Amino acid sequence: MKLHSSFGPNPRTVRMVMIEKGLSLATEELDIYAGENRSPAYLKKNPGGQMPALELDDGTIVAETIPICEYLEELYPRPAVIGETPQERAVTRMWLRRVELNITEHMYNGFRYAEGLPILKDRLYCIPEAADGLKKKAYFGRKWLNDLIGDRTYIAGDRVSIADIVLYCCMDYCKDNGQVLDADLPKLSKWFKNMNESSTAKSSLHKDSEAMGIAG
Amino acid sequence: MKLHSSFGPNPRTVRMVMIEKGLSLATEELDIYAGENRSPAYLKKNPGGQMPALELDDGTIVAETIPICEYLEELYPRPAVIGETPQERAVTRMWLRRVELNITEHMYNGFRYAEGLPILKDRLYCIPEAADGLKKKAYFGRKWLNDLIGDRTYIAGDRVSIADIVLYCCMDYCKDNGQVLDADLPKLSKWFKNMNESSTAKSSLHKDSEAMGIAG
Repeated sequence: MKLHSSFGPNPRTVRMVMIEKGLSLATEELDIYAGENRSPAYLKKNPGGQMPALELDDGTIVAETIPICEYLEELYPRPAVIGETPQERAVTRMWLRRVELNITEHMYNGFRYAEGLPILKDRLYCIPEAADGLKKKAYFGRKWLNDLIGDRTYIAGDRVSIADIVLYCCMDYCKDNGQVLDADLPKLSKWFKNMNESSTAKSSLHKDSEAMGIAG
Repeated sequence: MKLHSSFGPNPRTVRMVMIEKGLSLATEELDIYAGENRSPAYLKKNPGGQMPALELDDGTIVAETIPICEYLEELYPRPAVIGETPQERAVTRMWLRRVELNITEHMYNGFRYAEGLPILKDRLYCIPEAADGLKKKAYFGRKWLNDLIGDRTYIAGDRVSIADIVLYCCMDYCKDNGQVLDADLPKLSKWFKNMNESSTAKSSLHKDSEAMGIAG
């Protein structure tokens, strides 16, 4: 199988999962700033036009970051980033949904409708008047999580999971795009610092990250 | 295990999955209009304050609709609403994400920030100025899906899946809350009519639906 990948927080999420699992996959790199993910050839494979996408050996395309990670977990179960039992997987998925629906989707859309608008306005329907509210809503989501995380090292339990990886990649990318890290949320700050110091975080950065000054 | 459930499109999604699988679970009904899902007792179990939630025998809470459905699929794999193989599950999950991130999340948030605002403004951070844009964005998501669905009976393939159930429950609920069905999207209209005529759709409606005049 082949991974269609690029710079960006969602491709980085898949890279982090692969590193945690010790996987390497044949990869085709696309330049999203040049709009290669909106080319007819790519849109034919993934009509969502988003990165990344996994092309299976029979030609089937699995697009969308989380389904790709779920698929990799099914093929290479250990070490688990979702869970080793149905109950572990259920709890991780619950935290992942809380992270995505209360925090990261609002952060990404807040970015798309403001800082990302010049590039994205011709690619998708944008709602500029929602940007400030979405960023504020995401802050309240992070505050809620800060209060819930307690003394756990990781969001869903005592091991790093897809919930940590998704939130980390989003916050690390958005901090370089106008959504600074929260100095007033100590538990979440401690969690971020811990994630940020992991070797997986460092080695998952795209080769263009440094030159761009954006973690992706 | 015990299901904490109520009126509403997300609890209905779980009900439809249970009916498809021929499952019945011990259920405790909460009155969300009276705010029972925001009581200290329920918030202690599910700090998200949302419905439904599944309480396992050891006291573990699995909240969030999709993780509950994934868990039920793991325990009771057939008939599958996600898939019988890793590849089938990957493809269904891809379509589910497309449905949720491009359509249903925008429809629900459009509802929460407009028609739902009087009840919800004291329960969660609302963005009233985003409501119209979110509804428009959801329309473009439905139009995109209409063009993609082609001649398939179901969204993710030749069998009903969680992607159909999630979209159907959302559209059926929102049509009674200001987001009317699209007369200009023939493929999606045909899909909706087919879903709406299924016995599962009918028997999954909450007992209060008729009196309220809202499908949930």
